[in-house]
Amino acid sequence: MGNPGDTQMKLATGEGGYVLEDVPHLTDYLPDLPSYPNPLQDNPAYSAVKQYFVNDDDTVTQKIVVHKDSTRGVHFRRAGPRQRVYFESDEVHACIVTCGGLCPGLNTVIREIVCGLCHMYGVKKILGIDGGNRGFYSKNTVTLTPKVVNDIHKRGGTVLGTSRGGHDTSKIVDSIQDRGINQVYILGGDGTQRGAAVIFEEIRRRGLKVAVAGIPKTIDNDIPVIDKSFGFDTAVEEAQRAINAAHVESLSIENGVGLVKLMGRYSGFIAMYATLASRDVDCCLIPESPFYLEGSGGLYEYIEKRLKENGHMVIVIAEGAGQDLVSESLQSMDQQDASGNKLLQDVGLWISHGIKDHFAKKKMPINLKYIDPTYMIRAIPSIASDNVYCTLLAHSAVHGAMAGYTGFTVGPVNGRHAYIPFNRITEKQNKVVITDRMWARLLSSTNQPSFLNPKDIAEAKEEKQPATGLLDGENCKDKKSNTEEDPCMV
Amino acid sequence: MGNPGDTQMKLATGEGGYVLEDVPHLTDYLPDLPSYPNPLQDNPAYSAVKQYFVNDDDTVTQKIVVHKDSTRGVHFRRAGPRQRVYFESDEVHACIVTCGGLCPGLNTVIREIVCGLCHMYGVKKILGIDGGNRGFYSKNTVTLTPKVVNDIHKRGGTVLGTSRGGHDTSKIVDSIQDRGINQVYILGGDGTQRGAAVIFEEIRRRGLKVAVAGIPKTIDNDIPVIDKSFGFDTAVEEAQRAINAAHVESLSIENGVGLVKLMGRYSGFIAMYATLASRDVDCCLIPESPFYLEGSGGLYEYIEKRLKENGHMVIVIAEGAGQDLVSESLQSMDQQDASGNKLLQDVGLWISHGIKDHFAKKKMPINLKYIDPTYMIRAIPSIASDNVYCTLLAHSAVHGAMAGYTGFTVGPVNGRHAYIPFNRITEKQNKVVITDRMWARLLSSTNQPSFLNPKDIAEAKEEKQPATGLLDGENCKDKKSNTEEDPCMV
Amino acid sequence: MGNPGDTQMKLATGEGGYVLEDVPHLTDYLPDLPSYPNPLQDNPAYSAVKQYFVNDDDTVTQKIVVHKDSTRGVHFRRAGPRQRVYFESDEVHACIVTCGGLCPGLNTVIREIVCGLCHMYGVKKILGIDGGNRGFYSKNTVTLTPKVVNDIHKRGGTVLGTSRGGHDTSKIVDSIQDRGINQVYILGGDGTQRGAAVIFEEIRRRGLKVAVAGIPKTIDNDIPVIDKSFGFDTAVEEAQRAINAAHVESLSIENGVGLVKLMGRYSGFIAMYATLASRDVDCCLIPESPFYLEGSGGLYEYIEKRLKENGHMVIVIAEGAGQDLVSESLQSMDQQDASGNKLLQDVGLWISHGIKDHFAKKKMPINLKYIDPTYMIRAIPSIASDNVYCTLLAHSAVHGAMAGYTGFTVGPVNGRHAYIPFNRITEKQNKVVITDRMWARLLSSTNQPSFLNPKDIAEAKEEKQPATGLLDGENCKDKKSNTEEDPCMV
Amino acid sequence: MGNPGDTQMKLATGEGGYVLEDVPHLTDYLPDLPSYPNPLQDNPAYSAVKQYFVNDDDTVTQKIVVHKDSTRGVHFRRAGPRQRVYFESDEVHACIVTCGGLCPGLNTVIREIVCGLCHMYGVKKILGIDGGNRGFYSKNTVTLTPKVVNDIHKRGGTVLGTSRGGHDTSKIVDSIQDRGINQVYILGGDGTQRGAAVIFEEIRRRGLKVAVAGIPKTIDNDIPVIDKSFGFDTAVEEAQRAINAAHVESLSIENGVGLVKLMGRYSGFIAMYATLASRDVDCCLIPESPFYLEGSGGLYEYIEKRLKENGHMVIVIAEGAGQDLVSESLQSMDQQDASGNKLLQDVGLWISHGIKDHFAKKKMPINLKYIDPTYMIRAIPSIASDNVYCTLLAHSAVHGAMAGYTGFTVGPVNGRHAYIPFNRITEKQNKVVITDRMWARLLSSTNQPSFLNPKDIAEAKEEKQPATGLLDGENCKDKKSNTEEDPCMV
Repeated sequence: MGNPGDTQMKLATGEGGYVLEDVPHLTDYLPDLPSYPNPLQDNPAYSAVKQYFVNDDDTVTQKIVVHKDSTRGVHFRRAGPRQRVYFESDEVHACIVTCGGLCPGLNTVIREIVCGLCHMYGVKKILGIDGGNRGFYSKNTVTLTPKVVNDIHKRGGTVLGTSRGGHDTSKIVDSIQDRGINQVYILGGDGTQRGAAVIFEEIRRRGLKVAVAGIPKTIDNDIPVIDKSFGFDTAVEEAQRAINAAHVESLSIENGVGLVKLMGRYSGFIAMYATLASRDVDCCLIPESPFYLEGSGGLYEYIEKRLKENGHMVIVIAEGAGQDLVSESLQSMDQQDASGNKLLQDVGLWISHGIKDHFAKKKMPINLKYIDPTYMIRAIPSIASDNVYCTLLAHSAVHGAMAGYTGFTVGPVNGRHAYIPFNRITEKQNKVVITDRMWARLLSSTNQPSFLNPKDIAEAKEEKQPATGLLDGENCKDKKSNTEEDPCMV
Repeated sequence: MGNPGDTQMKLATGEGGYVLEDVPHLTDYLPDLPSYPNPLQDNPAYSAVKQYFVNDDDTVTQKIVVHKDSTRGVHFRRAGPRQRVYFESDEVHACIVTCGGLCPGLNTVIREIVCGLCHMYGVKKILGIDGGNRGFYSKNTVTLTPKVVNDIHKRGGTVLGTSRGGHDTSKIVDSIQDRGINQVYILGGDGTQRGAAVIFEEIRRRGLKVAVAGIPKTIDNDIPVIDKSFGFDTAVEEAQRAINAAHVESLSIENGVGLVKLMGRYSGFIAMYATLASRDVDCCLIPESPFYLEGSGGLYEYIEKRLKENGHMVIVIAEGAGQDLVSESLQSMDQQDASGNKLLQDVGLWISHGIKDHFAKKKMPINLKYIDPTYMIRAIPSIASDNVYCTLLAHSAVHGAMAGYTGFTVGPVNGRHAYIPFNRITEKQNKVVITDRMWARLLSSTNQPSFLNPKDIAEAKEEKQPATGLLDGENCKDKKSNTEEDPCMV
Repeated sequence: MGNPGDTQMKLATGEGGYVLEDVPHLTDYLPDLPSYPNPLQDNPAYSAVKQYFVNDDDTVTQKIVVHKDSTRGVHFRRAGPRQRVYFESDEVHACIVTCGGLCPGLNTVIREIVCGLCHMYGVKKILGIDGGNRGFYSKNTVTLTPKVVNDIHKRGGTVLGTSRGGHDTSKIVDSIQDRGINQVYILGGDGTQRGAAVIFEEIRRRGLKVAVAGIPKTIDNDIPVIDKSFGFDTAVEEAQRAINAAHVESLSIENGVGLVKLMGRYSGFIAMYATLASRDVDCCLIPESPFYLEGSGGLYEYIEKRLKENGHMVIVIAEGAGQDLVSESLQSMDQQDASGNKLLQDVGLWISHGIKDHFAKKKMPINLKYIDPTYMIRAIPSIASDNVYCTLLAHSAVHGAMAGYTGFTVGPVNGRHAYIPFNRITEKQNKVVITDRMWARLLSSTNQPSFLNPKDIAEAKEEKQPATGLLDGENCKDKKSNTEEDPCMV
Repeated sequence: MGNPGDTQMKLATGEGGYVLEDVPHLTDYLPDLPSYPNPLQDNPAYSAVKQYFVNDDDTVTQKIVVHKDSTRGVHFRRAGPRQRVYFESDEVHACIVTCGGLCPGLNTVIREIVCGLCHMYGVKKILGIDGGNRGFYSKNTVTLTPKVVNDIHKRGGTVLGTSRGGHDTSKIVDSIQDRGINQVYILGGDGTQRGAAVIFEEIRRRGLKVAVAGIPKTIDNDIPVIDKSFGFDTAVEEAQRAINAAHVESLSIENGVGLVKLMGRYSGFIAMYATLASRDVDCCLIPESPFYLEGSGGLYEYIEKRLKENGHMVIVIAEGAGQDLVSESLQSMDQQDASGNKLLQDVGLWISHGIKDHFAKKKMPINLKYIDPTYMIRAIPSIASDNVYCTLLAHSAVHGAMAGYTGFTVGPVNGRHAYIPFNRITEKQNKVVITDRMWARLLSSTNQPSFLNPKDIAEAKEEKQPATGLLDGENCKDKKSNTEEDPCMV
């Protein structure tokens, strides 16, 4: 602990199996840092708040479903304002950067970091880094004030611009040091959060008084530990339009097949929730659930059956579904037409082509309409519930940085915002667990085949027995992954 | 327990202060009831699910924020399918009734009870009671099948019709008995759930094999214990339209005041969240936070100040705010014009009138535009996240009734669905705690006065000290109410 | 002609009964004004246009439905760019002012006047008058450039602010003269256009080289001659939300009555078109069609009949409907409660109260839900078709002013934009003609009573005979008013 | 005239160059057909209508922009109810069929034909043909009543189903004859209307008393003569979403290019109007305006310039734009990968690929996001203004068929509904005239190059001179095509 370059976790334990996975603090490596009373206590808005400051001991439990004799398990430090802060208002020089693909709510988070710093802590100097991490190397920055960001939450995208990659840790830390920045807010996906962890390590190595706070961004909801990622509800909402259109198209024509591709490179949450919300989908294909096309129990057989029964059907496919099939099929294709092949790497185009081909060969005329609403979904402003959520994320990050915490990311754990060590959210991805109830619920609602052969099922069933009752035992880790995938839902 | 007429709770305790507040079961008073294997285990959709059935011991904890040395506190029985059920598929004769005001999502809940019973448990006989509880006395009922309810989730309102009151317990139970109904699903607010509790008691008294399941409905989010009520997110989303309009109107004219009345007779959650999501509101008035009009620190002074600074402002008022002021003012009015007075009981019309009057007297011309979007909000179909939520509520209720539980209501507690005794959700109302951080966050975002006089504040501050550190001590009950009001948010 | 203070029309006649109602031109009173080649001819965007300039002789016919032997009737000067202009680009100093209530599309018109002047004619000096005509007296003005107005069409309201009244012609013309403004664009309703006519007269009296162009604004579509006013389609579209909500509310409860008040003080177009578009309305009440409440053939009888047949109904009422009934009823009320009475001047509240009262007395319980979406409709951004329409209006006005026309208003006549003398659009209001087919179509779709007593009908029928075949005869004037009410529709 | 198999037009002429292009009537070949008084005259909804019946002589002029000395030109028979009808209510057996691609408003037209026939004329027997013209051969038909169609206007698509082709005239007429159908309503595009003309000819040849009415359907607005096709405004409205998304995406990233493909195989109206309404588009490519990619004045050069100036851009491309370039480029590609090539026939994918390739070769990194909202646009329900329009179309068709007209299509001509001979709407397509002002307006708003080389421009300019003043002369035919493309707009 406190040893620069050290990424091992700060762990504390207690009675009954209580474990706290704590986040770093500036005093870990700058032990003599002075602290100050939190200026919030003089803020009239907070004048009537009882116990406004989060108690130093407050932690958030990760375990909700328990038994009488359960052990207590993992906890995280609760987010919120602290009695004492490690920055004076005038001293703070914050910067905000947004990285990776668009996600509804980015502008709200930016707005609320700015307004939170300014209105709650009296901070005046806030810089927007232009165009993602690369912007650290460039001279273009944007001065951010509450006035500048006043209306941005009503617009999609990110006013700061974004990019992928561009990650030279030491150049970034040089830039932070040169500009005299001492609070860094980094919005981005797991790659970006991994990068933020490295930036934090380098800052700690150099012994700088710079707090690094990550705000996890992923429209796919594939970040673990936290309940849900911002923009996810907005994405699922907007996806309904595409599914509705596919449904109408498929209904209006004989053997109509409406096919919608949704986001989800590694995790099928958007596809799954959009399917559950819509109730018009007959088949949902996600990366976590392998499927096959030909033969008994395959997709083509199911499509044929469904069309014969109902005359139409709707398929939702996550962008990352069936990647093994795609690459297999592309390899077998003639290698010469690079451009055509490139297009077929899009699983939506690839599977459209496959389905059309299959039924053309079978002389069964079908009418497939393919819809890819990806960019129309990513670019919309966030819905109200995401707006409130983004506000809380931003404020949690601000409270944490002001209180001297660093090298942390923020997010709700079972409904309470917490500070989470970077590695806990980057070490694995949140995925749909297809042996869990939510996926079974989906299968039941769509009536689609499970694409599992009897052997797979037998194995799954076998595994079922020992799992019973082991929620708190040795297998707890495995089991937890089963309940974690839809923490705010089941 | 098992003694008809007995409403005392089923409590179980365990080590470390573990308490389980359990729900009744048919076997409490019909101990010899046979049970059957759950048909879900033969459902192909569930073939691959590991540990599909909820363990009999699974409970959901109410306490998320803890310390090392916390006691474990209250738990509820986890919702979900059980290994054994107490109804055979052919035997089930279910009915569904919707009571009280409209709320987005009612049709989704109806749809999913029907589809859940039919597709998961093979139930064939489901009856819709027409027009609320009164419908039990009438002959008009609707036969509900998956086909009948197929598209209803895309429509607002309730296809079953609704009404208030009409509650003669023994006539209702007679009707249930006469028709041979053995599962009763009751959707409604706290009054309805209290009624459901009485119906359950009467059924138990008569020793009938009838499971009574409540699904709590309140657009105001004023039901305690559960994380959030269905339709709430939809309502907050739709409220943004009205606030946007008020903002545009106020911006386009000198001294423009946009006033929006939102739902919330006793609880200001919709007003609070709509304000936080919008960021265009300058003042939010809710039932929980008393305010006054005249004099220093009063509303009129604030309006004047705001108009002088900005030239425009937006006020959001919950329908139940300032009720003491309204009745006081109506009493002082001439009693003769009943119809005029009646209109002024609407706090929106009343306060519009008051503000206009005040500034007319002051010769300060203002332009107030009053918007009441109540019925436009209540009547829309639910958004996607509410659709998924309604599905889970419905399925939880179905699993519970099939498993023989009765006299329970369903809802998520810290993100996990649970079975909750009726009295826990009807004994008090969920309210915005104005000494908690969420309200402070709102005050900070609007800059409105707290309407508290210095004495109030001093008292509040005094109370602050002892509260510290008592999260798990004697004062836990009180404190818990402070953190419960926005369980999935802070 | 050319005589200052003279408001008589510029008329030209031709063969076959051709009449041109022309608009003033700066050269009418400044005969020696130099002209210049239109800079558009060097604009690359127009390089390929054949006959870009409107021919000097082009006129737009008001008469569409004709017979073989028809006379040709009234024509207006066609709008569009002219070969020669009477302002040099550098010389132009334009101003824009918006007056009266909000209407979707105001910002688009502002944007396109600015962009049109700048991009088509190279004009650099454009001033926004702040807060309606009153703004002419104040010092606050806004400099308008394409950059400033770039995104405003996506926002509702008017970025310039608006107000009613504030009309001191000589102060306004002083202000125009003092600031050196030479093109005045005035957006507003019939009162504003009348004011614009007076401003024009004063400018002509003073012999100033100032072009005055009106852009008629009325959400109610009550301006005659032109096909449709901007914002009207948007308003009808947005009104559907309120009608849908009323429909859902009424359907969900026994004897549900959904009541929606829509805009239309003197003309019921919004109510009529919203009713026709929706198909869920059972009764539409507009200012042009008198109705009565009590007795046989009255509204209450119809409501009762409808509820007994269907169990629910939707009523749409224009704000100006039944004003005679309202004032009659208010006079009979106790005069003492001014505030209550004031509220009842709102026909929506008044009729809600009347209906509730009536059925309460009859002991027939009904459930009335009243929705007033007025400000939610006025404040939204315009839909795409209105956006395009606003663009054409703005460009027509710009082309006209640059070409030296003045004292004119713009608008489409039978689909072609024309310059129309002020008095033609202010001398009377466009109204729904209830003896015409559109209203009959509405009555047929709602099945509501005509509220005409047999004597009225007999009279109407009698009048019918002579009207036949007189489309082109002496009665043409009267008849025209019958076909004008929905010129782009029948 | 009256001679079966004869497709020549019914022409009547009058003074001043008046020409009436009339439609066939059943009595043309069944001269002794009895007629009956129109039952509408006993309909209470119409009791107060003055001159409800359209005068037999009423015609609608096609010429709006005229000069003093203009000739009168082409006219069409005015649509509307006639004093006498040629069908008794009990005798009518109508059928409705929908053909071709989806278009918003189809269900409204179906609904209003059914309600119009039933409520206005007391018709009871109405049949829906299932799945387009092919449905005539099959046994599946749908009985249509006002109740069945009550809510269908709120849904997208067509409840009757649709298909392309399937056109065996004599089998269709056999089916009509066998089923005893005597009114045929055919909704479809120009191909379908051509088919309807042939069906009409065959019916006339067989001497059947069957009225054939076409309702022209084309989302692309490519049907000539009529002002605008139904669904067009809805499509342009919905297209705004995609353009907004493209704009947000392009703004959020360095060198962002948002590319949106819109409908329009032969006519670029949707692309043009969507561009004009949006104001965020930098380049609009349509079939009527040839463009080229490489070299000076080409698309790539413009993209590069725009990105260097602004950092982002939005391109809208109609599906039929640049077809010559596409086929040229596909021919030069390797022929082996059929599937890749097939995808590249989609101009959106093809041009995305081209742009990416070009800038990759230039080592200028760009970020292109391609959005194809086609099916999301086609499948939505119609907006309010289209709903009203569809109602009028349907009623016009019903009035026409009842009055014995046949072999006609309906639509507004300069705002008044008229009966138009089939061949006038099928003989050519309505296209954007790129030498007209609307396109110049677009070029001016986007600043895109005209893609015309100096020689083209010179030619265009030369042609300009003679056109002047010839509006009514010999060249009138040519000129008319210039003004017809945006009849309700310029």
